[in-house]
Amino acid sequence: MKALNLKNGTLTLSNDHLVSQLSYGEVLLQVHLAGICGTDLALLNGYASFNGVPGHEFVAEVFETGAGVDGGLKGKRVVAEINQWCGECDQCAQKHYRHCLNRLVIGIRGHQGCFAEQIVVKANTLHIIPDSIDDRQTVFIEPLAAAFRIVEQLRLHDYRDVMLVGAGRLGQLIARVMVLQKKQLTVVVRHARQRQLLQGLRLDCIDELAVEAKMVDVAIDATGQQSGLMLALQALRPQGICVMKSSYPAPAEIDLTKLVIDEIELIGSRCGPFSMAIEALKNGLIETESLIDATFLINDFQVAFALAQQKGSMKVLIKPY
Amino acid sequence: MKALNLKNGTLTLSNDHLVSQLSYGEVLLQVHLAGICGTDLALLNGYASFNGVPGHEFVAEVFETGAGVDGGLKGKRVVAEINQWCGECDQCAQKHYRHCLNRLVIGIRGHQGCFAEQIVVKANTLHIIPDSIDDRQTVFIEPLAAAFRIVEQLRLHDYRDVMLVGAGRLGQLIARVMVLQKKQLTVVVRHARQRQLLQGLRLDCIDELAVEAKMVDVAIDATGQQSGLMLALQALRPQGICVMKSSYPAPAEIDLTKLVIDEIELIGSRCGPFSMAIEALKNGLIETESLIDATFLINDFQVAFALAQQKGSMKVLIKPY
Repeated sequence: MKALNLKNGTLTLSNDHLVSQLSYGEVLLQVHLAGICGTDLALLNGYASFNGVPGHEFVAEVFETGAGVDGGLKGKRVVAEINQWCGECDQCAQKHYRHCLNRLVIGIRGHQGCFAEQIVVKANTLHIIPDSIDDRQTVFIEPLAAAFRIVEQLRLHDYRDVMLVGAGRLGQLIARVMVLQKKQLTVVVRHARQRQLLQGLRLDCIDELAVEAKMVDVAIDATGQQSGLMLALQALRPQGICVMKSSYPAPAEIDLTKLVIDEIELIGSRCGPFSMAIEALKNGLIETESLIDATFLINDFQVAFALAQQKGSMKVLIKPY
Repeated sequence: MKALNLKNGTLTLSNDHLVSQLSYGEVLLQVHLAGICGTDLALLNGYASFNGVPGHEFVAEVFETGAGVDGGLKGKRVVAEINQWCGECDQCAQKHYRHCLNRLVIGIRGHQGCFAEQIVVKANTLHIIPDSIDDRQTVFIEPLAAAFRIVEQLRLHDYRDVMLVGAGRLGQLIARVMVLQKKQLTVVVRHARQRQLLQGLRLDCIDELAVEAKMVDVAIDATGQQSGLMLALQALRPQGICVMKSSYPAPAEIDLTKLVIDEIELIGSRCGPFSMAIEALKNGLIETESLIDATFLINDFQVAFALAQQKGSMKVLIKPY
């Protein structure tokens, strides 16, 4: 079986990858299509010290069901939550499954990923995908859920306007989610293509030089760079909220006194609610097709990853068989 | 008129200090008693580059009322909000007076402070103090309000337990406020005296070596040191909230990736609601007397400040006449 294999930073194609035997509560999935994410590119550079099959954005079909799983799932088109939780820890007891203390993370931590013909996951982490959402949309569910996480985190907050810093791979999805919130939205873009992909959405695109102090109540950093975070913090009014929607390569130096004096809230944001992403796609609220650069067969993974690594590249898809 | 005067880091006693003429909406207060705060000590080291009369914790009596002020205020025992707001900016329009964009801050920014026989403030920032709260309690209203700010900031959050790192001047008040919230409270103490002053309160005192990872939902840093903040962050469970109740001397290096992965909220916290502090004192919910080290006449300010600067010192009071 074909799969991409990451070992000490080198990605190779394996033709004889074996999936593990199904344990109780697990299912075997046949992967239709998978997406390359910024985190996958970071893994190649050593992030999370992951070795194995990477990949966590995908759509698949249930091929086989293990013991304790409803056999009716067979043949269903599904996605699986990126966080595979234990169901038994303190966080799971509170239904904070995405923060399970023993979680495995598909293609990132202790769990084989989706750049493979087949993948084994826990049945209770599956979402069945309605026919109205096609495969090319479905691969966006995981990152779209991560974008909706911001909405979940802001739901109790009172705010008037939002600035999104960064309109790359994830930023594009965040922009699409945040326009649905009916607040004034400003997006700080770097490239003409980023700007062009946001056309038609009810938002203002600005250059980073146009960012002023105390402009907005909420600022989201989706650049993954300390400079983006600094820009977001600078743009906040007193009592503003800064959402960090990035992983940062190194510890950053922060002016905590500004945070205290202006009573700023700095919130980390990671994975999100798949159900909200599915609902939004089903209702035609989010456009994703324009974000797809190309689809490659798994054999051409090197070209695919090279394209994904190019500046301004958005979503590159991989078809594993 | 006597007043302490800070000039380029040197504090002297002036015997011929003049207060400004009353403008519209202002009152002249006769200061009964004032408290030395950690911020006052920081001012001596150059914080906020303040020159003038320091001091912002006090109790006073209305001596004279300016134009546009109800003459009935004369003779009332009062405190004044530390933030003297403009009433006209974007933040004031939203009733976020403590974040007024043009605010003057008593004894810290552009406004003469209370280590003086008299002080001029805006009448609409006064709170009349009930007779049941004596002068020695009243000087604690400003820092106590700052402690209650944490309660205000956490009011929409769901949390089970709290760790307070630091039991100094402000930490002692925060501990007294947080026990009222009926959550499990753990306080990280450094000195025997800090521990002794917390006796009788329903909380656990621990040493910093006893702090473990993922212990609590809320951690408050009241140490003013990066090491205290790191300890607070370490103690948080996923989705935990870290309240920064300190000013930090220098930018701090923060591991943002932990904040993102665990979706931690880092909240700056500054001044708080005087009304909550007054209400709590009126209802006998907060004990402050044990925190008073000594009271000095203003002439003995050098001894007073020397005592306040000693390790383990809590509240030193100054009587300006």
